[in-house]
Amino acid sequence: MRILLTNDDGIYAEGLCALYRCLSLDHEVIVVAPEAERSAVGHAITLSVPLRVRMVRRGREFRGYAVNGTPADCVKLAFYELVGPVDMVISGINRGANVGINVLYSGTVSAATEATILGMPALAVSLDAYRQESYCFAAYFVSVLVDQVFHWSLPFPFCLNVNIPHLPPQQIKGIKFTRQGTNRLRERFEKRLDPHGNVYYWQCGEEFMEEDPETDVVALKQGYISITPLHHDLTHSEILTRLESIKISY
Amino acid sequence: MRILLTNDDGIYAEGLCALYRCLSLDHEVIVVAPEAERSAVGHAITLSVPLRVRMVRRGREFRGYAVNGTPADCVKLAFYELVGPVDMVISGINRGANVGINVLYSGTVSAATEATILGMPALAVSLDAYRQESYCFAAYFVSVLVDQVFHWSLPFPFCLNVNIPHLPPQQIKGIKFTRQGTNRLRERFEKRLDPHGNVYYWQCGEEFMEEDPETDVVALKQGYISITPLHHDLTHSEILTRLESIKISY
Repeated sequence: MRILLTNDDGIYAEGLCALYRCLSLDHEVIVVAPEAERSAVGHAITLSVPLRVRMVRRGREFRGYAVNGTPADCVKLAFYELVGPVDMVISGINRGANVGINVLYSGTVSAATEATILGMPALAVSLDAYRQESYCFAAYFVSVLVDQVFHWSLPFPFCLNVNIPHLPPQQIKGIKFTRQGTNRLRERFEKRLDPHGNVYYWQCGEEFMEEDPETDVVALKQGYISITPLHHDLTHSEILTRLESIKISY
Repeated sequence: MRILLTNDDGIYAEGLCALYRCLSLDHEVIVVAPEAERSAVGHAITLSVPLRVRMVRRGREFRGYAVNGTPADCVKLAFYELVGPVDMVISGINRGANVGINVLYSGTVSAATEATILGMPALAVSLDAYRQESYCFAAYFVSVLVDQVFHWSLPFPFCLNVNIPHLPPQQIKGIKFTRQGTNRLRERFEKRLDPHGNVYYWQCGEEFMEEDPETDVVALKQGYISITPLHHDLTHSEILTRLESIKISY
């Protein structure tokens, strides 16, 4: 297969490299990724400044296109200019989970969603770790998943959000197909004073309050690999049905 | 009511000011908005740099909080630090429509979605114009909508994405409750050379290919005000049902 590999941690990130190593054994893998970390950019795209592309080499591992844009920009630019359509787009492996509400903020997931909008099947892959990450098992799991997923006859194109616990493989309890958690995070802003006496705020303190066992948040916490199918239709169909009988006078 | 007003065109944008003028006649309106334009930032949030807040004055119109962040940052910071919970969050009036796939890229819509995540009802409001915009009717329409929407008994909190044609009011055909269009745009990159001979790309050429008359895209094009209820659960439930019978061997 011809696979486009991207991420939001930037082209030099270890998670992307680990995935490249594993997938390039059996597939043609082309890398188009942000030149630097672009985490939490959501589905941002770049309209007000032009995009530039550099061919970069990551040690002896691979050559790839580094773009001064967001993950969604990378997928669009790859599709329209640099690479053309591919058999699958894979975004990751992200450093840190992308479950629950964080799915909306995630550049990793938005790259995969963008691929689906453009008609290509896509995986977003994240490892639930921020320190001393080992991507070996996660990369292996993705390579296995890629080989199996086309036999599932999913409606084309599809987008799967895969989150992998950072545990020794034998401690991973299995795989759960999940829903995205929708509860808000327990979060806060830390208010500080700079050396000049001016106030600034750090956004921090994320903690999930999700308890529904069918969600990605809870499955991952329990030690399962979570796989959530995503779409890009934000319509709230239930409310839409209720609205149909309403008249607005103006 | 106590209303938080934000946008993605920045605190000095005409659309925000027009809405402030109209809404402040009947409500307490607090402005917390990006200090400069942050269009197409999607649901980006700012984690790697601290946020700063300045109280600014827009002529004789209003004082408001200007934030060096995204629309979603503004809503979070308002909720947790600057303002607290409000009765409704309104994002807009955006210069340019936010329908179809653009809903995913829109900072305007993401501010409203963020409000819903935090438990507050929200409206995202956009005017389908990029030149010689007149926000008068749109602002009037929003003030009418705000007064009526709580009588509809929508499941709380809710988020409505409102798009208004830029037509003389008597030419507007009415209101349609719509679905978000999901088809990709006809888009392209314009490849140019800078004065030093280096290639750069402009992302441009958006054109909708949507034809489904139930979508926001088509309703707006036909001269209707479109109102689409949105949610923040990206789960593709139909695919999830199909996945339940699948076994992955690894």
